[in-house]
Amino acid sequence: MEEMLDEQGLLLKTEDLIESKKFTELSEMLKVSNSADIAAMLDELSVENMLIVFRLLSKSSAAEVFVEMDSDKQQILIQAFSDRELKAVIDELYLDDTVDIIDEMPANVVKRIIRQASPDTRKMINELLKYPDDSAGGIMTPEFVDLRQSMTVEQAFDKIRRTGVDKETIYTCYVTDDNKHLLGVVTVLEMLLAEKSAVIGDIMQDNVIYCHTTEDKEEVAAKISKYDFMAIPVVDSEYRLVGIVTFDDAIDVLEEETTEDMEKMAAILPTDKPYLKTGVFQTFFKRIPWLLLLMISATFTGSIITSFEGSINAIAGGIVLTAFIPMLMDTGGNAGSQSSTTVIRSLALDDIKFADFFRVIFKEFRVAILCGVSLAVCSFFKILLVDRMLLGNPNITVMMDITVCLTLVITVILSKLIGASLPLLAKKIGFDPAVMASPFITTIVDAVSLLVYFRIAVWLLI
Amino acid sequence: MEEMLDEQGLLLKTEDLIESKKFTELSEMLKVSNSADIAAMLDELSVENMLIVFRLLSKSSAAEVFVEMDSDKQQILIQAFSDRELKAVIDELYLDDTVDIIDEMPANVVKRIIRQASPDTRKMINELLKYPDDSAGGIMTPEFVDLRQSMTVEQAFDKIRRTGVDKETIYTCYVTDDNKHLLGVVTVLEMLLAEKSAVIGDIMQDNVIYCHTTEDKEEVAAKISKYDFMAIPVVDSEYRLVGIVTFDDAIDVLEEETTEDMEKMAAILPTDKPYLKTGVFQTFFKRIPWLLLLMISATFTGSIITSFEGSINAIAGGIVLTAFIPMLMDTGGNAGSQSSTTVIRSLALDDIKFADFFRVIFKEFRVAILCGVSLAVCSFFKILLVDRMLLGNPNITVMMDITVCLTLVITVILSKLIGASLPLLAKKIGFDPAVMASPFITTIVDAVSLLVYFRIAVWLLI
Repeated sequence: MEEMLDEQGLLLKTEDLIESKKFTELSEMLKVSNSADIAAMLDELSVENMLIVFRLLSKSSAAEVFVEMDSDKQQILIQAFSDRELKAVIDELYLDDTVDIIDEMPANVVKRIIRQASPDTRKMINELLKYPDDSAGGIMTPEFVDLRQSMTVEQAFDKIRRTGVDKETIYTCYVTDDNKHLLGVVTVLEMLLAEKSAVIGDIMQDNVIYCHTTEDKEEVAAKISKYDFMAIPVVDSEYRLVGIVTFDDAIDVLEEETTEDMEKMAAILPTDKPYLKTGVFQTFFKRIPWLLLLMISATFTGSIITSFEGSINAIAGGIVLTAFIPMLMDTGGNAGSQSSTTVIRSLALDDIKFADFFRVIFKEFRVAILCGVSLAVCSFFKILLVDRMLLGNPNITVMMDITVCLTLVITVILSKLIGASLPLLAKKIGFDPAVMASPFITTIVDAVSLLVYFRIAVWLLI
Repeated sequence: MEEMLDEQGLLLKTEDLIESKKFTELSEMLKVSNSADIAAMLDELSVENMLIVFRLLSKSSAAEVFVEMDSDKQQILIQAFSDRELKAVIDELYLDDTVDIIDEMPANVVKRIIRQASPDTRKMINELLKYPDDSAGGIMTPEFVDLRQSMTVEQAFDKIRRTGVDKETIYTCYVTDDNKHLLGVVTVLEMLLAEKSAVIGDIMQDNVIYCHTTEDKEEVAAKISKYDFMAIPVVDSEYRLVGIVTFDDAIDVLEEETTEDMEKMAAILPTDKPYLKTGVFQTFFKRIPWLLLLMISATFTGSIITSFEGSINAIAGGIVLTAFIPMLMDTGGNAGSQSSTTVIRSLALDDIKFADFFRVIFKEFRVAILCGVSLAVCSFFKILLVDRMLLGNPNITVMMDITVCLTLVITVILSKLIGASLPLLAKKIGFDPAVMASPFITTIVDAVSLLVYFRIAVWLLI
């Protein structure tokens, strides 16, 4: 078996063939390449060469490649297309992809796309555009196979043969009544295993798992993942089947949502473009709000130090106390974000619910005691042996060492409890738990750890 | 259309029906419930009731439910099963699922499972167990439809009808020669659209995208996601087709890998069990290593303060300088983790590669200047107007304000450059970039920001 060319190889060979004007050979090579690979290559080509390659593609593969391309390159292509070329691509696209592309284009390009679509397509596009982007309606496609209860398996297969090419999937078929109400679902495997004369109504499963047009796309993807579905039917408020969402769209949604969660967890406002496609100012505006907010919050933490200034000065070698601040703050922050990340992810995976609040808190409490005590014991001997004896710092007394280690235990326990409970509480009141991640927790935990630290210092050292 | 019962509803109704011994009704209800929902419910039932419900399930649905259950509950069931019951379940399971279950079970349970499997199954299980858990071989199933080039479409459909029920998917069929070499791929849709007498060799696509048994499961999942495949064929070192990986397994892999990345990013060693299924000590051991390491590193940060002790005392009101430490450290840490998270996620999604190093660094540099300057300007006026004038702290001079804000600009720029470059470098030398996330970056950035801070203070204030 011949190894296929990878993206880089495909790119080099294509540029080579264009250079030497071997278009027949290029066209042959494109025929046997996968559309996702061709799209990745087109994104790297010059605009001129991109157009040459695109025009060598067959009608159906042109549409497949087009869908996989970056939206800025799609826009360039659309602007370069003749009306006929544009119409050819739109006719071949699945409707959910057309709608996705429209969402990304400027108004004048959208107008051209709509103008080139057939009246039927135009009507369906306008229907789909009404749904919010992040709802089941916004990601579904109306291109599914619908059958009637009274059909025989043979009639069903005839229908699939007639209309199958234009459907996003044919392997799960949906059974509806005259008013488009969803009655059941039947797979091609079930139909293959049944007699040709069997009636669809008899072999279909009538307990269908579906979702509503208004459902959040993340929930739709979670359902597909949970039930291992190839596609899930989408019904409107009157239980009429209006579309399906397929597993490949669900995978994309899951990946987008993960990226969004990670961004929120790192105090970034969610973006929907790949990193290198986002402008410097765009990136800046996504990052500065949280940075600013957290900076202002952190200045209050600083004022805790100022408010204890008198006490610090009253302690012999009090300035040494400040040397332990980074360690206490960092360890508290790390301990807290371990807990918050675990809880945020478990909530996202539906492993825990708000009802588990006390189980989670109790578990975190026990883990926190183990962590806090281990860290304190290590820290105690480190400070005593290294800082006091090896480095001979006379200002570090055993009482100071105890102050630091006691703070450590309390800080770790409080951090883990705060880190675990805030995401759960956020979920409960309808906020996104992902925001309650590291940066947010760190800011709170810093203040808590400093307060604990100085109170203990005043109590033990003065 | 009737609304289906949700998990909670199913659980309550089941307990009710068991209580009142209405087993026929219970069995009817189970028949129309989805196996993933039944499994979720079984996980919540008492052991006794779990067994009652399980024994009411049909043979094929019992296996489907069993696969979806938590491994501790699976173990309880296996131990309660008679040999005949165990054999019935194993016969119905897909082989990749059997292997997954075996991986989780203690040795004595594994022995019982292997003993109950048919000789053929046993041989295949042993084959599959040889592959590492995280390779394509470790997650594939040998249950695919293989066809010959010379077959007609009609013969192919006959084969699917005969063997289809036991296959993980029938919709993508693989064409092999006498030595099991992979020659091509053909979908059920393509076969439905072709004449019954058409020859498979003529309608198959012979440019197959495949993966090797040794390939990392994450790469396999990424391929399935990239190409929107329902299944991908897996070949051994001699290009013989040995199995397939289906999209639902790919979704699971993607979710596991995301969890693992998030755990690493929060300084937790990866776990493979859901949160509430992990013991307190297990959780502790996953969290303490990084906490300890980062704590020790942070003590070096503290020693930076100690080493500048003399200088701090030499500055009028020098202790006030320490009040800005939390703000500087936190903002540096946040700025750095924004960049590192973005880069880590972009690497995972293949949006950027190491070759983009300088593009990434240059972009981060420009974003950092924008962020740093904005933060510094806000901070300058906040310190001047609030801390000095409103709160009337006479120790805060304009020069001290300048010191803080200059540090802020430099810290933010360095943090973003460090945060963006470390994950890329880690990737280059074969480490997991996810480790270079927030906690790690924070520890480095803390030291950097303090060094910068005190150097500038000594330069401007003494």
